[in-house]
Amino acid sequence: MAAKWAQKTIVLPPHKRGCHLITSHVMKEIQSDLTQFKCGLAHLFLQHTSASLTINENYDSDVLDDVETFLNDTVPEGRKARWKHVLEGPDDMPAHIKSSMFGCSLTIPITDGRLNLGTWQGIWLCEHRDHGSARKVVVTMQGA
Amino acid sequence: MAAKWAQKTIVLPPHKRGCHLITSHVMKEIQSDLTQFKCGLAHLFLQHTSASLTINENYDSDVLDDVETFLNDTVPEGRKARWKHVLEGPDDMPAHIKSSMFGCSLTIPITDGRLNLGTWQGIWLCEHRDHGSARKVVVTMQGA
Amino acid sequence: MAAKWAQKTIVLPPHKRGCHLITSHVMKEIQSDLTQFKCGLAHLFLQHTSASLTINENYDSDVLDDVETFLNDTVPEGRKARWKHVLEGPDDMPAHIKSSMFGCSLTIPITDGRLNLGTWQGIWLCEHRDHGSARKVVVTMQGA
Repeated sequence: MAAKWAQKTIVLPPHKRGCHLITSHVMKEIQSDLTQFKCGLAHLFLQHTSASLTINENYDSDVLDDVETFLNDTVPEGRKARWKHVLEGPDDMPAHIKSSMFGCSLTIPITDGRLNLGTWQGIWLCEHRDHGSARKVVVTMQGA
Repeated sequence: MAAKWAQKTIVLPPHKRGCHLITSHVMKEIQSDLTQFKCGLAHLFLQHTSASLTINENYDSDVLDDVETFLNDTVPEGRKARWKHVLEGPDDMPAHIKSSMFGCSLTIPITDGRLNLGTWQGIWLCEHRDHGSARKVVVTMQGA
Repeated sequence: MAAKWAQKTIVLPPHKRGCHLITSHVMKEIQSDLTQFKCGLAHLFLQHTSASLTINENYDSDVLDDVETFLNDTVPEGRKARWKHVLEGPDDMPAHIKSSMFGCSLTIPITDGRLNLGTWQGIWLCEHRDHGSARKVVVTMQGA
């Protein structure tokens, strides 16, 4: 059985600070590659240290807002904070911390040419900067 | 060298809220597949947004309890909380947050037909709902 | 296309409690294997439950210190804490929690024989014990 690999870099447009459902955007970019795999894995790797990728609820946008609220309540920012790294603005050091809390990569099973997500699961981009720029995601697909 | 792939869905029975060691349950389900791989990776993907998978201590069950204590102390619930997403009960939104904190997937090396975990490492299911249902885990194994 | 696999265990020397940039150490150990892969994935798996691996900023060492500050502020230790698991010292249970917060494994894309990290991304070892010992990392590389 031949191993198949596909790799491409997706550029996500700038998003405002907060959590965003990006499943359909990602799917559009990788659909034609995905269908080649009966069984495999898709790996998404965000090449940044002040945003994160996570998998969470895909239906109620209140969940996106509440996760952002949690992150802001948990990681001090501005006068409440005592960070040494402040040169890039008060939102920068909190952004680095949040990036490690949720992580910058995801691995998702591929089954019969589709991402085998649960019914309520979606792919989220969490933008932790006030004014985030475009974000690059290296997607690596492999399988048989 | 031929690429080998195996994929199956494991159903974990309902667990009470808290952290649970599931290494032996998972091993029973994948043992016969694992032995086919001299070198490879096993990927576990939980298809839910209110529970999580993590790797942690496999010996003292107090560690399971203490991690649950930490999660509950860190993510506000009930009157202490100010979530917008409350329709599915006071434990639901905290469960989503905890799911992103620990994540829903694990990748573990396979060496000589066995999961190459450290001596003290075990696979944990963290059930974040008060009354969680059965949980599905898609296990994808690959290697040579 | 033949599937290629390489797997080796790296031993990191003892590090003091805190966050440490280990990119160059890891690269030295896997460089000769990496160059074999035009397209693939590298998986790093830390075989311990009181340290973690994460990807974060590779330039300003203040970021390393601030993340350690965050972890210590977020996970109670000593008299502030109410852990059941205290036999191995006051820093042990907090270390387990931090290990699950950041996780013990990383998956990084390989492109043209190199780890395809973003410009500012580096590999961090976060040592959560006061007196951590040498730490083993199983590195699995695969690709075409």
